[in-house]
Amino acid sequence: MKKIVVAGEILVEIMADTVGDGFRGPIALTGPYPSGAPAIFIDQVARIGQPCGIISMVGNDDFGHLNIDRLAADGVDVSGIGIDSDRPTGSAFVRYRADGSRDFVFNISHSACGALPKGDAVQAMIGSADHLHVMGSSLSSPEIIAFNIEAARTLRQKGGSVSFDPNLRKEILDAPGMADAMQAILSLTDLFLPSGEELTLLTRTKDETAAVAELLESGIQAIVHKQGARGVTYFDASGSRFVPAFTVEEVDPTGAGDCFGGAFTALWLRNEDIDRALTLAAAAGALAVTKRGPMEGAAMLETITAFATSQGRRI
Amino acid sequence: MKKIVVAGEILVEIMADTVGDGFRGPIALTGPYPSGAPAIFIDQVARIGQPCGIISMVGNDDFGHLNIDRLAADGVDVSGIGIDSDRPTGSAFVRYRADGSRDFVFNISHSACGALPKGDAVQAMIGSADHLHVMGSSLSSPEIIAFNIEAARTLRQKGGSVSFDPNLRKEILDAPGMADAMQAILSLTDLFLPSGEELTLLTRTKDETAAVAELLESGIQAIVHKQGARGVTYFDASGSRFVPAFTVEEVDPTGAGDCFGGAFTALWLRNEDIDRALTLAAAAGALAVTKRGPMEGAAMLETITAFATSQGRRI
Repeated sequence: MKKIVVAGEILVEIMADTVGDGFRGPIALTGPYPSGAPAIFIDQVARIGQPCGIISMVGNDDFGHLNIDRLAADGVDVSGIGIDSDRPTGSAFVRYRADGSRDFVFNISHSACGALPKGDAVQAMIGSADHLHVMGSSLSSPEIIAFNIEAARTLRQKGGSVSFDPNLRKEILDAPGMADAMQAILSLTDLFLPSGEELTLLTRTKDETAAVAELLESGIQAIVHKQGARGVTYFDASGSRFVPAFTVEEVDPTGAGDCFGGAFTALWLRNEDIDRALTLAAAAGALAVTKRGPMEGAAMLETITAFATSQGRRI
Repeated sequence: MKKIVVAGEILVEIMADTVGDGFRGPIALTGPYPSGAPAIFIDQVARIGQPCGIISMVGNDDFGHLNIDRLAADGVDVSGIGIDSDRPTGSAFVRYRADGSRDFVFNISHSACGALPKGDAVQAMIGSADHLHVMGSSLSSPEIIAFNIEAARTLRQKGGSVSFDPNLRKEILDAPGMADAMQAILSLTDLFLPSGEELTLLTRTKDETAAVAELLESGIQAIVHKQGARGVTYFDASGSRFVPAFTVEEVDPTGAGDCFGGAFTALWLRNEDIDRALTLAAAAGALAVTKRGPMEGAAMLETITAFATSQGRRI
């Protein structure tokens, strides 16, 4: 089975227990939960049963060990996680507002995961990989951008593949070098996983149909356009198909896109039937929102399969 | 009235709701509470009614604004607080173990308060000060050490005074330059506020009586030796006196020493009767432990006075 590797932020998330505005006074909280978009993605990959690993840094504190223990227990190769004895593990405080939007207090770029580890363990991890997943949220420094571009080139040169989830807000593209970095990653991408308006964010055309054609002509094999509660549309050279989302009681939407992406990428690498892969990935995304905590809803493949079947989907 | 200024860390504290070991999984928490030893000290000074200010840095996030709003509301001059647009406000997660000891996860040295602000506001704050308080826990970088030594010299040259609370663990003295920094501050100190074994930590002799003599001979005017739940012993050239602690139901001991120090330093600068100042400061320290949150127990002077009277102490 092909091994998926991702390089990017490992965080803890601290969640406000009540809906409201921000963190201007003491409120009830729950945490630390293991978190970080690439960490959630790779945990879902592991729970699908796919070999996988992560390259990241954590602090030498409970928050770091919590993440390492969780990922290792789920089967993620954690040999690429470095421990920074000086900086703390990254963190994100999250509170939902009444309108469903969120307030955050982040400690990421100056935390341990603001840099990647160096040395033999990282090279060994890239050497052991068949597939690299690039998470746009992780492209937070020139060093991490260069690392991902270099790793993507290495993987492609040896016959491996690359998936890319832009996972960014439009404003981030204005950061110095970011548009170029995204284009460089996109030019090395086999499987593209944009959400909503990200489909046309990196294309010359802003028309969706034309954007899909442009992306496929540029060398991308497959595009999975995530449209949240609506569903997903898949595009490749043979055509397109739409798979509706599952309806579930939403407890915590954080991590849904990452779990969808992790499940789909693993199944795609297994050459699963595309309809089945899309349906199971949609089920993984749906299950992700039924549990509190960004990584807590990542489900095992048999749970995902049983859920999809219970909802009357043919898989 | 004389203005007290302190330079050092402003943090938020996140407290575990349950007694136990560390933060290796999601648990109930409450926070963010305003915190940081110098911030607690100066908030207590303000609640005594003494002019005061703080020099520090916070992030441009809810945790920073929470602290600024709280200190300003209590009357602290916050014009010396800089806002770092890049780094987050410092934080401390705290959990009590069954044996009363504590587990922490800190983000301090790489947070906004890992450095001090620069510029006119800081110089104006030092210029407006009559008294500098130095908190040993704040002497975390060569830059902050140099700033405090320079400020202490400036204050003394213009007829002001300096108080010093070592607030450190013995192991910290082994850090490069730390023992020299502590000695430099001690040589500029008028009012020395050690806790427990800190009394002899910076003296040549390790005998308490001889240490007191050594400190007074070196130019220190007054020593207040804090002995926790036992009480405090005061020493000056005229002799010594002991004031027992108040007995209260302890909810959260964090901040007790800082509130004691803030209250005593303010009253000492007013030339209050020493017995009265010690008794009221002991009352402030006692009230500090009756509320959850490091700064929440800092009480107004009339509350402190009423409490001390209600406990039968003559003030």
